[in-house]
Amino acid sequence: MLDVCLLGTGGMMPLPNRWLTALLIRYNGRKLLIDCGEGTQITLKMLGWGFKTIDTICFTHYHGDHVTGLAGLLLTIGNSGRTEPITLIGPAGLEKVVQGLTIIAPELPFELKFIELSEETSIPSGDLLIKAVPVEHTISCFAYVIELQRRPKFKPDQAKALNIPTRFWKELQRGETVEWNGSIYTPDMVSGDKRKGIKVAYCTDSRPTLGLMDAIYKADLFVCEGMYGDDEDKPQAQKNKHMTFSEAAYLAKEGEVEELWLTHFSPALSEPEAYLSVATDIFPNTKLGEERMIKNLSFIQEKNA
Amino acid sequence: MLDVCLLGTGGMMPLPNRWLTALLIRYNGRKLLIDCGEGTQITLKMLGWGFKTIDTICFTHYHGDHVTGLAGLLLTIGNSGRTEPITLIGPAGLEKVVQGLTIIAPELPFELKFIELSEETSIPSGDLLIKAVPVEHTISCFAYVIELQRRPKFKPDQAKALNIPTRFWKELQRGETVEWNGSIYTPDMVSGDKRKGIKVAYCTDSRPTLGLMDAIYKADLFVCEGMYGDDEDKPQAQKNKHMTFSEAAYLAKEGEVEELWLTHFSPALSEPEAYLSVATDIFPNTKLGEERMIKNLSFIQEKNA
Repeated sequence: MLDVCLLGTGGMMPLPNRWLTALLIRYNGRKLLIDCGEGTQITLKMLGWGFKTIDTICFTHYHGDHVTGLAGLLLTIGNSGRTEPITLIGPAGLEKVVQGLTIIAPELPFELKFIELSEETSIPSGDLLIKAVPVEHTISCFAYVIELQRRPKFKPDQAKALNIPTRFWKELQRGETVEWNGSIYTPDMVSGDKRKGIKVAYCTDSRPTLGLMDAIYKADLFVCEGMYGDDEDKPQAQKNKHMTFSEAAYLAKEGEVEELWLTHFSPALSEPEAYLSVATDIFPNTKLGEERMIKNLSFIQEKNA
Repeated sequence: MLDVCLLGTGGMMPLPNRWLTALLIRYNGRKLLIDCGEGTQITLKMLGWGFKTIDTICFTHYHGDHVTGLAGLLLTIGNSGRTEPITLIGPAGLEKVVQGLTIIAPELPFELKFIELSEETSIPSGDLLIKAVPVEHTISCFAYVIELQRRPKFKPDQAKALNIPTRFWKELQRGETVEWNGSIYTPDMVSGDKRKGIKVAYCTDSRPTLGLMDAIYKADLFVCEGMYGDDEDKPQAQKNKHMTFSEAAYLAKEGEVEELWLTHFSPALSEPEAYLSVATDIFPNTKLGEERMIKNLSFIQEKNA
């Protein structure tokens, strides 16, 4: 129902066979991309999900490895025939950064819309809710939480008991209020309990923070940087404002997420698998990111209630 | 003695297994790069010749596929430990383009020097001579001819006959003039005939032009765009200011070059080999570019003279 693909697992610079970290989310015929380093369009091409329906691109921050692929990607999206606007979201300074990078692409066949962030922000985007959460890196940086919310179950028995004509049921199911025959009917009058939606969280680059721990709470999937595998590199992680595997795993545990994917490996970390157990000892459902690793997330099947 | 590597063979956009067209020239411990599209640093990494000694980067023009890899490459060169300046050469507007692209890399550990071109220009660069030649594309574009000139052979017999003391021979061999005992001795007094050096020519993107034909004359290697394989695509080539294989081969033939490499294949040209014979029928020593194809060029061995 909602498909997630980790497009690359590298940090700092693209390497042969290791693309830079970026996440693609596909839902209901549209696609949202988070981060776009050099080469992101190539791994996207390998994935084969197409370019034309990418309508939103979010940036965590403006270090080269998260943003230098933008101009090439926009040109390729243009070549795919897109003419509808693309919304770009990122920390303050976004429009200036994009103007710089696209200096060689003065004419794109679609409009670019900019949403600049300076604090925690929730942005409705169709059925999705994009939450940007400030984190702690060497420059302004945001984590993103993408939520597909689920409406409570409609209760026909309750609607019947209230004598609401069936012609109004659809509006109530859509969450709209109905006024009829002098009475007002709100959706909660004919709805069951709140239901869990789908929640995906993505954080790179950052130190662990309490705000991040809150933001990822109960996520189905938490994609998190693990620049360093070895706990002995923690002083480096602190200095460069990154995380070790165990710090990411601790966040996942405290945030009670379902599953953790580690990514954004340092170029010096040539064998991340050597350190996987450091993370699984803390949070067992940790997976090492791999190029174009995919997860399909669906609403949880409910018991008849 | 002078090593040439074609870093990629694609045009328009990088593809899985086809990097964008760029040329690396290595000579005497230093390296010169022509063009730098998205992903050039990755194919450079695959080549394994290192980043630190890249001291010159030439741009043919400012379409994305020739320039969007610059910021990432500069960051990676910085990470390699280089602190010496890098000279950038390209059509007018270079500094503005580079300022735009490097907006996300505000602090590099080396100085950038800019040489902007508006007409045919010869730029001495150590032992190399870089010639930039205007060609015909949809925007301002230059071909590059890199020459390693060879000094004429020193003739000890002539130096002896002129009674020049041996302690001055080295200066004369280096091409310097010597004054001694009231007489002036010039290198040509003790030198044989002019000798052929090494000449490499690179042209993309352009229509064939007479100026280009002159510029590549007698080159040891001519690396030329062949956006289209099929002669039937000539109207497209004319419209988009590119070349077909046969047009490039005709240039190579008229320019009397030793060898032609075709590159900058259209993304639609998935099997360039299907059209190789179109070129070899005109210029037999044509080769299809391949990723990281290398040629080592040496001065021609002379007969004892």
